[in-house]
Amino acid sequence: MRISLAQINPIVGDFEYNLNKILDYTKQASLNKSDLIVFSELVICGYPPKDLLLKKQFIYDCKKYLNLLKEKIKLISPKIAVIIGFPEDNTKEGKPLFNSLALIQNGIIIATRQKTLLPTYDVFDEDRYFEPAKENKAVDFNGHLLGLTICEDILHETSKLAKRRYHFSPVESLVKEKINLLINISSSPYFVGKPAIRENIFKSFAKKYKVPVVYVNQTGGNDHLIFDGNSCVIDKDGNVCIRLKGFEEDLKIIEINDGDVSRRGAPLERPPDVNEELFDAIICGLRDYVKKCGFKKVIIGLSGGIDSALVAVLASYALGSENVLCVSMPSRYTSKSSVLDAEKLASNLKAELKTISIEEPFKAFLDLLRPLWKNTNSQLAEENIQSRIRGLILMALSNQSGALVLSTGNKSEIATGYCTLYGDMCGGLAVISDLPKTTVYKLANYVNKKEKKELIPKNILTKAPSAELKPNQTDEDVLPPYETLDKILNAYVEDHLPLSEIIKIGVTKDIVAKVCNMIDLSEYKREQAAPGLKLTSRSFGYGWRMPIAQRYKETI
Amino acid sequence: MRISLAQINPIVGDFEYNLNKILDYTKQASLNKSDLIVFSELVICGYPPKDLLLKKQFIYDCKKYLNLLKEKIKLISPKIAVIIGFPEDNTKEGKPLFNSLALIQNGIIIATRQKTLLPTYDVFDEDRYFEPAKENKAVDFNGHLLGLTICEDILHETSKLAKRRYHFSPVESLVKEKINLLINISSSPYFVGKPAIRENIFKSFAKKYKVPVVYVNQTGGNDHLIFDGNSCVIDKDGNVCIRLKGFEEDLKIIEINDGDVSRRGAPLERPPDVNEELFDAIICGLRDYVKKCGFKKVIIGLSGGIDSALVAVLASYALGSENVLCVSMPSRYTSKSSVLDAEKLASNLKAELKTISIEEPFKAFLDLLRPLWKNTNSQLAEENIQSRIRGLILMALSNQSGALVLSTGNKSEIATGYCTLYGDMCGGLAVISDLPKTTVYKLANYVNKKEKKELIPKNILTKAPSAELKPNQTDEDVLPPYETLDKILNAYVEDHLPLSEIIKIGVTKDIVAKVCNMIDLSEYKREQAAPGLKLTSRSFGYGWRMPIAQRYKETI
Repeated sequence: MRISLAQINPIVGDFEYNLNKILDYTKQASLNKSDLIVFSELVICGYPPKDLLLKKQFIYDCKKYLNLLKEKIKLISPKIAVIIGFPEDNTKEGKPLFNSLALIQNGIIIATRQKTLLPTYDVFDEDRYFEPAKENKAVDFNGHLLGLTICEDILHETSKLAKRRYHFSPVESLVKEKINLLINISSSPYFVGKPAIRENIFKSFAKKYKVPVVYVNQTGGNDHLIFDGNSCVIDKDGNVCIRLKGFEEDLKIIEINDGDVSRRGAPLERPPDVNEELFDAIICGLRDYVKKCGFKKVIIGLSGGIDSALVAVLASYALGSENVLCVSMPSRYTSKSSVLDAEKLASNLKAELKTISIEEPFKAFLDLLRPLWKNTNSQLAEENIQSRIRGLILMALSNQSGALVLSTGNKSEIATGYCTLYGDMCGGLAVISDLPKTTVYKLANYVNKKEKKELIPKNILTKAPSAELKPNQTDEDVLPPYETLDKILNAYVEDHLPLSEIIKIGVTKDIVAKVCNMIDLSEYKREQAAPGLKLTSRSFGYGWRMPIAQRYKETI
Repeated sequence: MRISLAQINPIVGDFEYNLNKILDYTKQASLNKSDLIVFSELVICGYPPKDLLLKKQFIYDCKKYLNLLKEKIKLISPKIAVIIGFPEDNTKEGKPLFNSLALIQNGIIIATRQKTLLPTYDVFDEDRYFEPAKENKAVDFNGHLLGLTICEDILHETSKLAKRRYHFSPVESLVKEKINLLINISSSPYFVGKPAIRENIFKSFAKKYKVPVVYVNQTGGNDHLIFDGNSCVIDKDGNVCIRLKGFEEDLKIIEINDGDVSRRGAPLERPPDVNEELFDAIICGLRDYVKKCGFKKVIIGLSGGIDSALVAVLASYALGSENVLCVSMPSRYTSKSSVLDAEKLASNLKAELKTISIEEPFKAFLDLLRPLWKNTNSQLAEENIQSRIRGLILMALSNQSGALVLSTGNKSEIATGYCTLYGDMCGGLAVISDLPKTTVYKLANYVNKKEKKELIPKNILTKAPSAELKPNQTDEDVLPPYETLDKILNAYVEDHLPLSEIIKIGVTKDIVAKVCNMIDLSEYKREQAAPGLKLTSRSFGYGWRMPIAQRYKETI
């Protein structure tokens, strides 16, 4: 049996686009004499459709395009079979839909299978829409006994959960039927290291049950989520036979007969370097957000610091530097070297740079407000005014040109609230809001290494980080060194560790308490933050749902 | 058996505060010789704790305070029993917690019961944290057979779902045991009309099974959610015997013996007027958000229009007008009458009014940006600049004074994107962002009627709404009349109706398509909106989870 793995980048809600993409890939697979082509989870509407699934018309359109697909596949070839993910009506009690797949051949749906394990952790809300399946029987396809599953259902850990909750485990049930091959379709979002974690799960499965696995994942960015692709085929001994590209569309073919996978050369290697993986992920997420939202150009406020420098580089890679407008907005507190560094970077990137001094509007606001404040200390308010003037200018340029403002804050800042709401937090997408500052440095160094030159000027990489909102300011006036801060951040945010455990990583009690308190108190800022690309196992935003009006205080 | 219903307003995560509140009420109930006092769902930590439940230390603290509570209740009286909601460890497979209640007496937990039906619709995410219970046995308490349930578990509709999913229905199971009384504890958030809907569910239950119901709900505001209280006791014939206050803490006692409820006079009536209910709800939500976030004073930009006028009135009721700072920020486009209306309103409220002209910073920005734009049309950008200057001024006043900025946009604006991100959308809480414009008018008229005077000046109620960002502008330049807009809004947002059904309400196809398209395209603004009080069955924010980078277009 010849199988094509179709790793595509659908657009959420663009049925016409997705249908044509599916048909194109099916044509290719048919020309290659595939018996079967496999697409990813909910590919017909794109993942995640979120509350579009609550619209009656959207579900109607899903059905309409599934029917269109059936007819058109038949015209391509009466022989080729297609596995496709779609939302299916539930006609009985419970949530109105199933998260399903259909096996289609010659204009007919031969079989459908439904997902049992509906993730509700992290960024997932599948129980909001779908009813869990209570059975999953193997499918006989041209004499091959196939187990057809969706994402989560193959995971053994959660399988135990299903057994307890629903008295049914998809994995055990299929294995008992002695399937020759397990096919899993999924739309599994990226975080750093996830491609390897996922592959290991499939390897374990294959080895444990002596069954090969064909895994097809979605690729492309959707809002804050990046789908990394990395689809693969694992033989029954747990070897990777084929690996599809990361963060790109891809189509690969494999022969599987009687549970044996014919190998053809070594599979594509995954990038050995975590920075390369991260870099590719951001490029993918950034490019797709901009394009899928209908933009072409972006605007970036270039401070001369490392964060905006890295974002400008990433945007130039993702969109071409001709589509990147850099804006330098010096104030009375901006150092000469910051202005020069920004200019140098823009010149290195060959991106347009506009320089707009904020002095005049800043003076106008001070003249207006200082008389009200008389002799009280208005330091903080005046710092924020500068940041908000810059936000206002970027948004005005965006309104006038139709280009999208990119927000450049990193995770360490957004965690601790070391950022100004409606100021430097302005923008349609927060490109690196899930990268701790120490990772920002690593990635910036990686870029220069990759380019084999100082694309990002050395001074940007070496100077002490500063918001430059008052004389001689550095981040460390308020924050602990980023090495320390990011360790705490990782423990507190990604792992939800108690403060009493965090101090064991070698940071004093006072610093841990201070940083975690800053994180807690900044929830109100994050509530209004731009969507940020998810790059770690716990990013702020959709996967971090903290109350604001709360008073929980951990004691150490 | 004498039962006290304890309807309290806990603070999320403030264990000390909640514990003391629970003990105070228990003392009162003990003095009144109650056999049992009943508190609401998850009262020990406050509802909704959201991702605080993912913190190990938080769960540890829940346990610690439950133990403290056991000891302290014993000291109050060895006789009185207490029903209390708390997150309980799940020691088996599945999610690590149950949403549970404990029946405590004389320092001992006599029984615990777990919630089966975990809501995941609208604003709820309970499957994210909790494992559903697979049984619920009646509890023998002093010879009375009690059914002890949590919120959703009493609803018959969802009960069918439980039966299908888990082969278990809490309602059927308890009724089969022939319970004398059903007790339901809950934290059920408000939307307009919900108190009546909820009561009808209990009435149906009581009549159908000939079992009286004791219902205890949480009260108070938490972030965007308002808990309306309205706890009650229903006898087995479906009559309301006791009704606790709406939107306030309350304690009431009832005698129930052998399933018969002794009545004592007529129960408190619920407000007959929907405007009164809405008014009380907003006051509660606004006051609690401000107080629970640690603020005392608020700042409101007063445009002379109806939205900011209503918010100023609501804030004066909720916090006292001495805690409300109104700021009038006229521009070259502001009409004389708007300034006068704002002044009149502030004077009527006896609230402080500052007047700050935005002309100088506006000029500074135009001088800076117009040369870049040369002769292109910069109308929209210049409108937004004005709105963002006002936002910047309000935030500067907030930074300087420590008062919270209230956002004043209504639902019709936020739906259609007729508002400026980082401009009039600035603020810590969006007070009326779930009130369509037509309801804003109704509520403003209700306020004047209640006050028996023109607290809100008549001119504000009668003039055509305008953003006053260019000469002779009115909202109807861009939007259909609000009567029409709000009908579409209701159908499209609250009911997710297809466009083809919306046109049946008597609006032309073109207007429906235009408005719904505006709603779809404004998702990116709402993504960064301030949390807004939930007042309808579908509010933007936590209960509205739409993708941004999507291209779904309904055809009519």
